[in-house]
Amino acid sequence: MKMMRKDRPVVAVIGATGAVGREMLNTLAERNFPASEVLAFASARSAGTAVPFGDDELIVEELEEDSFDDVDLALFSAGGDIAKKFAPVAVKAGCVVVDNSSAWRMDPQVPLVVPEVNPEDLEGHKGIIANPNCSTIQMVIALKPIHDAAGIERIVVSTYQAVSGSGQKAVDELQEQVRALFSMQDVTPSVYPYQIAFNCLPHIDEFLENDFTREEMKMVNETRKMMGEDIRVTATAVRVPVFYGHGESVNVETREKLSAMDARAVLSQAPGVRVVDNPGEKIYPMPLIASGQDETLVGRIREDDTVDCGLSMFIVADNLRKGAAVNAVQIAEVLLEKGLLLSV
Amino acid sequence: MKMMRKDRPVVAVIGATGAVGREMLNTLAERNFPASEVLAFASARSAGTAVPFGDDELIVEELEEDSFDDVDLALFSAGGDIAKKFAPVAVKAGCVVVDNSSAWRMDPQVPLVVPEVNPEDLEGHKGIIANPNCSTIQMVIALKPIHDAAGIERIVVSTYQAVSGSGQKAVDELQEQVRALFSMQDVTPSVYPYQIAFNCLPHIDEFLENDFTREEMKMVNETRKMMGEDIRVTATAVRVPVFYGHGESVNVETREKLSAMDARAVLSQAPGVRVVDNPGEKIYPMPLIASGQDETLVGRIREDDTVDCGLSMFIVADNLRKGAAVNAVQIAEVLLEKGLLLSV
Repeated sequence: MKMMRKDRPVVAVIGATGAVGREMLNTLAERNFPASEVLAFASARSAGTAVPFGDDELIVEELEEDSFDDVDLALFSAGGDIAKKFAPVAVKAGCVVVDNSSAWRMDPQVPLVVPEVNPEDLEGHKGIIANPNCSTIQMVIALKPIHDAAGIERIVVSTYQAVSGSGQKAVDELQEQVRALFSMQDVTPSVYPYQIAFNCLPHIDEFLENDFTREEMKMVNETRKMMGEDIRVTATAVRVPVFYGHGESVNVETREKLSAMDARAVLSQAPGVRVVDNPGEKIYPMPLIASGQDETLVGRIREDDTVDCGLSMFIVADNLRKGAAVNAVQIAEVLLEKGLLLSV
Repeated sequence: MKMMRKDRPVVAVIGATGAVGREMLNTLAERNFPASEVLAFASARSAGTAVPFGDDELIVEELEEDSFDDVDLALFSAGGDIAKKFAPVAVKAGCVVVDNSSAWRMDPQVPLVVPEVNPEDLEGHKGIIANPNCSTIQMVIALKPIHDAAGIERIVVSTYQAVSGSGQKAVDELQEQVRALFSMQDVTPSVYPYQIAFNCLPHIDEFLENDFTREEMKMVNETRKMMGEDIRVTATAVRVPVFYGHGESVNVETREKLSAMDARAVLSQAPGVRVVDNPGEKIYPMPLIASGQDETLVGRIREDDTVDCGLSMFIVADNLRKGAAVNAVQIAEVLLEKGLLLSV
């Protein structure tokens, strides 16, 4: 087993050619992550191509069993199958894995972490750390401070999710569909089962036995894993024709009464949150202003008097950044800072 | 006071050049409404222009104080100010008014009616009948049968509203913004305060004292007026870049337990509702399939076990048709059928 160079680790991005993988490389460069070296891996198909890294480029290597031999920290964004197969291989090679897929999130041995919410869960990790689902991350960032202040009992959330959450192909598909429709041409959906341009699909990820989608149950289960199993969560996930930035209409019931003004005060002190809430001036969160930002925007905060202690709000974040790449790099930063890059 | 020709009334459409006014004319023609004559009125600016009526055209006349002298039934879709001013004038002239604006909806003297929900409220009207807000209509059509079966106690709704709800100018604006963005040109919003193309605005109609929007409070107050003041409703209204068809993510708590299967059975018998709910086959309501339809589509029906008796569903309808024009014409049909076109 190799010695840890914990102050300047060798970092690998797995799935470096995808929308999130590219954003991970951007984020490492932007945040000046103290890597001694950054490597880019992808499938054989992409090997040899170049991906941007700051002002530089990296040549993508094919991911293989021995790819992790000289790597200390691997950021995975290559889907569940690759994560299932290669994360244990990486850990065996002495590498710590931060995985963006859903493969490991609900494993009781694997911490599921948003650094602003539950950084303490990183202690005692066994080599794999899971990055939550994009729509969960922005919700818990906004709700954890409310939970700490007033005790959340129930969450009802409806999402407005951007196509970039389905990867670069979906971004291209929305663009192509709009072009086709404006040229009076037919639209042939491929990533989505139906046209997404000028439409909304109440369907993200596959349908489960209980008629909820996997995306909806991710929001339920991941939120409970991070914030507490006694919190009741129900979700409806909807894809909207937006490129970047997920919106969430959230209604919460708390144990103790929290006024809208107090909620604003609590959130304005919360890490990773920006309160964008001045209705009189038409100031509220929107995908357009969240796109490219690392903070989670919270606004439309108001008391819901249909229950004893109710609050409604609208939450928006850049799903590729805080919803994926930025959160993964932030986890890496905490691991480094706390000396938790020592693997098993 | 003129004699009523209640079997073949003279019908006027007020605001005939607007998006809803045009749809009212379409609907009258499509449904073969038994009018002896149909007249089209608008502001002086539009007078003299032609609007389609079935295979015919009507020449638009300027709306004036004496416009109602020979009219038995007036369908108003000309905004709140015109309705406030001219509806009483029309009633005084012996005309029955069905108004699509919000001006009269909460007046205790004015019935607010969705024919599938509360046709009995038309009895004893005083000349003015209000057509509810588009997002309210589709919600109560879907929820009234649930209420009758299990007693609704609380509704939490988040909307996905099409730009056509803001009129033809907003349809043009979305189209122009998309064209501009795809030609690398700047976007200058006009109808909306921000770009709507590829964005979501959690802001419909103006903000009120309580930080809810007027649109949100319409959904609260109109639903309670039609379905019962004891029902608690909270709403978040969001504009999405869709041309036609409003979506609604609705969570309800009922007094008695209703399974998803029972809810489907109840809804499949309900007038004006089409159950579109087969997740396994990717069958669910979407604006794209609701557009041009008169029925309200309901799907994604599932039990919400975060409360004792909870149900979630997704509801979509064509906001210009059932959400406005069709409901107004259906009210007129009931008035005619029940002999309620006799005015005061």
